[in-house]
Amino acid sequence: MANGTLLYAQSGGVTAVINATASAVITAARARKVKVLAARNGILGALREELIDTSKEPVSAIRALAHTPGGAFGSCRVKLKSLEADRARYERLLEVLKAHDVRWFLYNGGNDSADTALKVSRLAEEFGYPLTCIGVPKTIDNDLAVTDCCPGFGSAAKYTAVSVRECALDVAAMADTSTKVFVYEAMGRHAGWLAAAAGLAGQRADDAPHIILFPERPFEEATFFAEVKKTVERVGYCVVVASEGIRTADGTFVADAGGGKDAFGHTQLGGVASHLAARVKDTLGYKVHWTLPDYLQRSARHVASKTDLEQAQAVGKAAVEYALKGMNAMMPVIQRMSENPYRWKIVPAKLEDIANHEKTMPANFLRKDGYGITAAARRYLEPLIKGEAPPPYGRDGLPKYVVLKNTAVKKKLPKFEG
Amino acid sequence: MANGTLLYAQSGGVTAVINATASAVITAARARKVKVLAARNGILGALREELIDTSKEPVSAIRALAHTPGGAFGSCRVKLKSLEADRARYERLLEVLKAHDVRWFLYNGGNDSADTALKVSRLAEEFGYPLTCIGVPKTIDNDLAVTDCCPGFGSAAKYTAVSVRECALDVAAMADTSTKVFVYEAMGRHAGWLAAAAGLAGQRADDAPHIILFPERPFEEATFFAEVKKTVERVGYCVVVASEGIRTADGTFVADAGGGKDAFGHTQLGGVASHLAARVKDTLGYKVHWTLPDYLQRSARHVASKTDLEQAQAVGKAAVEYALKGMNAMMPVIQRMSENPYRWKIVPAKLEDIANHEKTMPANFLRKDGYGITAAARRYLEPLIKGEAPPPYGRDGLPKYVVLKNTAVKKKLPKFEG
Repeated sequence: MANGTLLYAQSGGVTAVINATASAVITAARARKVKVLAARNGILGALREELIDTSKEPVSAIRALAHTPGGAFGSCRVKLKSLEADRARYERLLEVLKAHDVRWFLYNGGNDSADTALKVSRLAEEFGYPLTCIGVPKTIDNDLAVTDCCPGFGSAAKYTAVSVRECALDVAAMADTSTKVFVYEAMGRHAGWLAAAAGLAGQRADDAPHIILFPERPFEEATFFAEVKKTVERVGYCVVVASEGIRTADGTFVADAGGGKDAFGHTQLGGVASHLAARVKDTLGYKVHWTLPDYLQRSARHVASKTDLEQAQAVGKAAVEYALKGMNAMMPVIQRMSENPYRWKIVPAKLEDIANHEKTMPANFLRKDGYGITAAARRYLEPLIKGEAPPPYGRDGLPKYVVLKNTAVKKKLPKFEG
Repeated sequence: MANGTLLYAQSGGVTAVINATASAVITAARARKVKVLAARNGILGALREELIDTSKEPVSAIRALAHTPGGAFGSCRVKLKSLEADRARYERLLEVLKAHDVRWFLYNGGNDSADTALKVSRLAEEFGYPLTCIGVPKTIDNDLAVTDCCPGFGSAAKYTAVSVRECALDVAAMADTSTKVFVYEAMGRHAGWLAAAAGLAGQRADDAPHIILFPERPFEEATFFAEVKKTVERVGYCVVVASEGIRTADGTFVADAGGGKDAFGHTQLGGVASHLAARVKDTLGYKVHWTLPDYLQRSARHVASKTDLEQAQAVGKAAVEYALKGMNAMMPVIQRMSENPYRWKIVPAKLEDIANHEKTMPANFLRKDGYGITAAARRYLEPLIKGEAPPPYGRDGLPKYVVLKNTAVKKKLPKFEG
């Protein structure tokens, strides 16, 4: 049993399994008799001294967290700047940590959070305050360096592959007299990881998706139209998966072409899928449909990947172990041990090797023509969507997701104006 | 054992469970040693004499059909007109049926298909050809008369309620610094059945969805904005579910306001969600996100309702029984026997009571303010999404959906130009 408390905070866009990490953190800490506080709305809660006492939650609630999507304590989109530029906020953070005897700080997020955790650890050192900072990986974007994959990605990838396989069957059935071209918009502003995952939906030649558009390749409309036409003529229909982040050769986001303001100055919300669908309709004359799953793809806990869930829990558990061992400025990451059968383990990595780096998709994951994935991509991606881990359902036919009490810890400091 | 063959055809938009009906039809017919042909692409296949010999499919494939979304033989959007106006096509149909010794015709669809089946039965009678025509219910729109509910609706309803519950947790977690208003677009051009199903996602006051927009009520933008603002101020965020078919008091579809042509004559694909999201952003200044699940909501077999699946199979089985008993121009429909516990049975209904009628949502299902569902709606809807019936998954992490061989039957007639 250790003295002091552990502070856990979630950061950035939530995932289907970030709460599974939280659940594992709390469970592991409880087993070691360590008190866990959680920051409300991520780092903001730490700055505002809005802390949650997780000891008020029964074991059943913490267990249910493991199958509840969203972010149970709230998350936020706030990036602290450099130690110099944001000095006041970093010092406030440290004050709050001290006031609540926080000796272990676990920050669950992506690149930015790794960076923040690293800076907090440096400041604590500077001030001689004994604090162990641990980054805990999470992002559906799968763009963290060092780790083989990111908790949250596998479930979003599974949602994507399953959804594309399902809607393709729908389109195939109707194509003779109805929709011939279907466009699915996948998240991915910088890297096409989720669009690549859609590629898992197809097994044989001419299976959907027929065309995948990656942000890694410049988008050429004429070539795209030709490919769509060829596909419709050969297969009878064409399922397109487009990353939200595709750009033309001059760097313009295709999504922006469909948006902007109309003649009355009203906002037109863009989107790659609606834009491409409209262009295909105008140019090729096919009946089109499109989908924008948006948040559904990162909150679909009902179709989570078991592999992803297990990794999300494993990094949470390891984070507590690393913290209590005083392994400062580290992150538990996933290492792929073998591909067939797929084996992985958790190993420690330095935050400084992760913070502000970005993992891009290997060039050999994209097919030569740029419209599909290679066998190498398939070997990498497939294990990540393996296994099912459905949530329990209630008698009302809906998943039993938990909403925590989130009991506030009494504040000890004056209000912070920052 | 009976002489003659049974022809089965799918019609209109497919669902997550229409193939479960097909599976039940074929299984029931095989048990009675009746040969089943299927029309390729619905009624078009019957007109073109493009028939499929289902006896070439192994038992395992027919079993797998029960958990495969889409339409295994193809469907179509073709509505035959009156017997007078479309005489040539009806006569051709009869010719094809005769040529293949079809004595039982099962047409699996919505209102239009019930009408077509009825007309074919009348023409057969007129020509003295012994044919039993059976309508088999199917539609995610839940708008068929007489039947308590429609196979296909329950699974789309479950998808909707689950998805809304999940994305609401996502929005709730991020609302402090990110998206405050989220708009979910549900299918439903004429009736708000699926939007109503979204209401099941919330249990307590202030649970999402906070606002449901039904086509049954005229859309008033100012009142809507006021409600969104009030909700964000009270709850911190607002989840809106909008039926694609909502209209303003003058009858204009709201979806069309977001579409049309831009200044260059390019198509702008509309949509209720993107339009409402843009208007909320412009008027209230909130950060918005929106989703358009489109075909995903009717093909999501992975989250099908067990009740819906069982009903889809039951109507298929009953259709074969009715057919072999010679119960001409009938449809097996679902009768609700009791609500708590939910009990139902299949009973025969006359096609003439179903064809061209449309079931609308009862007025007492909508809350007085028009933004939510009542307890009566909940009592009706809840049993329909009850129970889970996940498909088997492969080792690749994806549902094992079957693709049939669809072996063509040799043509016997000259080509039809109609």
